Amino acid sequence: MASHETNAAGLTQAANAAAKISIFKLLEAPSKARLETLSDGIFAVAMTLLVLDIKVPHLPSHTTSAQLFAALFELWPKVGAFIISFFFLAKTWDVHRLILHSLERVDYTFSVANVLLLLFACGLPFSTSLVAEFPHTGIAAGIYLGNMIALPSLNYLMWHHATRGCRLVSKDINPAVVEWFSKNHRLVIAVYSVGFPIAYFNSELSVLWILIFQIVMHVLPFFSKDLTGSS
Amino acid sequence: MASHETNAAGLTQAANAAAKISIFKLLEAPSKARLETLSDGIFAVAMTLLVLDIKVPHLPSHTTSAQLFAALFELWPKVGAFIISFFFLAKTWDVHRLILHSLERVDYTFSVANVLLLLFACGLPFSTSLVAEFPHTGIAAGIYLGNMIALPSLNYLMWHHATRGCRLVSKDINPAVVEWFSKNHRLVIAVYSVGFPIAYFNSELSVLWILIFQIVMHVLPFFSKDLTGSS
Amino acid sequence: MASHETNAAGLTQAANAAAKISIFKLLEAPSKARLETLSDGIFAVAMTLLVLDIKVPHLPSHTTSAQLFAALFELWPKVGAFIISFFFLAKTWDVHRLILHSLERVDYTFSVANVLLLLFACGLPFSTSLVAEFPHTGIAAGIYLGNMIALPSLNYLMWHHATRGCRLVSKDINPAVVEWFSKNHRLVIAVYSVGFPIAYFNSELSVLWILIFQIVMHVLPFFSKDLTGSS
Amino acid sequence: MASHETNAAGLTQAANAAAKISIFKLLEAPSKARLETLSDGIFAVAMTLLVLDIKVPHLPSHTTSAQLFAALFELWPKVGAFIISFFFLAKTWDVHRLILHSLERVDYTFSVANVLLLLFACGLPFSTSLVAEFPHTGIAAGIYLGNMIALPSLNYLMWHHATRGCRLVSKDINPAVVEWFSKNHRLVIAVYSVGFPIAYFNSELSVLWILIFQIVMHVLPFFSKDLTGSS
Repeated sequence: MASHETNAAGLTQAANAAAKISIFKLLEAPSKARLETLSDGIFAVAMTLLVLDIKVPHLPSHTTSAQLFAALFELWPKVGAFIISFFFLAKTWDVHRLILHSLERVDYTFSVANVLLLLFACGLPFSTSLVAEFPHTGIAAGIYLGNMIALPSLNYLMWHHATRGCRLVSKDINPAVVEWFSKNHRLVIAVYSVGFPIAYFNSELSVLWILIFQIVMHVLPFFSKDLTGSS
Repeated sequence: MASHETNAAGLTQAANAAAKISIFKLLEAPSKARLETLSDGIFAVAMTLLVLDIKVPHLPSHTTSAQLFAALFELWPKVGAFIISFFFLAKTWDVHRLILHSLERVDYTFSVANVLLLLFACGLPFSTSLVAEFPHTGIAAGIYLGNMIALPSLNYLMWHHATRGCRLVSKDINPAVVEWFSKNHRLVIAVYSVGFPIAYFNSELSVLWILIFQIVMHVLPFFSKDLTGSS
Repeated sequence: MASHETNAAGLTQAANAAAKISIFKLLEAPSKARLETLSDGIFAVAMTLLVLDIKVPHLPSHTTSAQLFAALFELWPKVGAFIISFFFLAKTWDVHRLILHSLERVDYTFSVANVLLLLFACGLPFSTSLVAEFPHTGIAAGIYLGNMIALPSLNYLMWHHATRGCRLVSKDINPAVVEWFSKNHRLVIAVYSVGFPIAYFNSELSVLWILIFQIVMHVLPFFSKDLTGSS
Repeated sequence: MASHETNAAGLTQAANAAAKISIFKLLEAPSKARLETLSDGIFAVAMTLLVLDIKVPHLPSHTTSAQLFAALFELWPKVGAFIISFFFLAKTWDVHRLILHSLERVDYTFSVANVLLLLFACGLPFSTSLVAEFPHTGIAAGIYLGNMIALPSLNYLMWHHATRGCRLVSKDINPAVVEWFSKNHRLVIAVYSVGFPIAYFNSELSVLWILIFQIVMHVLPFFSKDLTGSS
């Protein structure tokens, strides 16, 4: 109704309310596409920064192959932690991609949760470094676990918020898919949480727990018939 | 008029003028899409680089959990500054996204202002480091505040430039939205500016001022009815 | 069949199976576009991080041009390794782009292989640093070669997986193109593999081997008629 | 002609040639979109990495504002170099964007030149560091200038290659635009080249020369009528 000839000063309270609605409509409309671009960018940088922690050993330049091999071998906790975190971030990104694909629009709550998700994704290079540097301390393993669990938890909350009463998704969404996704995430969060008491007694065992679960999670789908693509 | 058979050497002054117009038309036309990609990329990298300042403490590898916890606890100004700056950049990006979404085209002035915005976004990891390292000095808090204020100020100028006489936006834009956006930004800039005199007397109080305003700005919209999405 | 009114709790086993199929359909559908964005992002960051290894020499600020030139000249193995790895990653990205362009959809196996490819791409800045720092050791040259070979090998496996029985590509794809691509990659992997025995005897010679092959691979296409674009 | 039922082994020489053409057609077709994404990503990372060179000064934590101000003031050559290089990369990106927008397709030569352009863009953070660290040496200023000139030179070559006989652009392109663009770039390259003899006598004067030219190049368009957007 309000056209561009209207004097902004002469706006009534009602028009003001209309304006408020429009601005938020405006804010929500384009959210999905650029939210994806920003998220992809942050995931890409966070995944690449993981490798920055693996530093070339400081050795004299006339080092022999055997000496260098020994020095490189000592890097294995860092390389291992890098690979676990890399696959973990890739999985988180994959689920995030799936959630956004299901969405029809984005609201303010979803955006804030998404920023939190990206914050924890950016924190993973730090907590990966921490656990690689101090694998024997429970506190390092605990922070690493906490940082990890935050990611599927936020994905779960975002999914829950989006699908509750079909708030942000299409009304045609299959409720079995919604439930399957949620159940799956509750399981993942539960399994990771078991790592906390383990870390209290043996921190290295808790990292091993994460590693084994990661492998299971990546290998299991290969045995699922639905994935073979055979019609 | 000038077709591809025309000899470039034989161009008249008039054709030259036409060429000039075309090249700028050409320059403006595709600006929006790739300007968004570049901006998203720079925001993503700047947000991720913020975490690079949080370094794993240098301690002997046989450190106990208690010692590591104490060392990590000392990192809290860096972690706090990281979180404030991360949410601040996310908010700036969100507004930037909204501005570009409203635009129909991009002109030279807008592009230059956009480069300035990206420059200040890239500077934030440095000023965040500075205030985290020297929280007691007024100059560090002042630079941090200045860097922050530059971002909404440039967003405001870009919006002002774009909407003035519907220069870059559609003539159908709701003037109430335009005014609401501007008023909002003038308020934000004013509130941040109050931080300067505070920083002169107590630098840590000025960072607290920013933190509180950030929380208010992020929490307030949850109490707005327009955001609940209930039709 | 299952509509949104269905109670999730009342789902039969059959509906559960249907849900599983849908979720994977859902997972696969949008994979291509965002997989490309993430991959492009990781390649871009990995390629830029290569340069981080080339550090400005530590010299007093009143250094003369001659002294600085001498110090910079010593950086040549790093600059050389940077250029080789940069072009290598660009080539890998180019082939990756071609593979994804040919694809109609993405399945789980392809996604996991893609994460592995990105992992090795992120590892290249490290192995490039290693070979630049210790050019005389066979182990450094071997790791560099191994990291490099992993990239075309994964591209080859992804192509093989996608084209076998037209699993992920259109049935109209020219089988000669499929075969040409595979033959090409087998040749590339074979040529790089020759570098391993060379590295055992002389590590610098193996890097030279890579360099020469890189140049040949980049220069050869210029002599191919099909590339001149003439008609 | 060759359909998917054809046995790959039974391909005649003629079909092989056809396959070769198809693979390159395949390679060229999608180049533009993802070439833009990769280039945008690399420009974004390179522009953000520029700031990494500006390090927070190492001072005791009880430093006063005056001491910190003095330490920060000494950073001005780094801050200045950062700003010059940031705007320079933004300009290069802008021209690159324009070139790709004009293109209808991408060929192999163009792709290789594009990789070279990205290589020099990635090198700029290093040469910026170098000139900021050793502003008094001719060699540092020379490398900085050389790195800079490489970017518009490659843009010029890419434009020349693309427009020569309308190789990669539409036949409807205005030849005046083509000529105007080329003339412009020859001028830019010439002006930067003047910096070399200046650097030989006074390196700081050559950086000033770049700075002044940068300002002129950014300010001049504001006085051009074609840019005001007034119909």
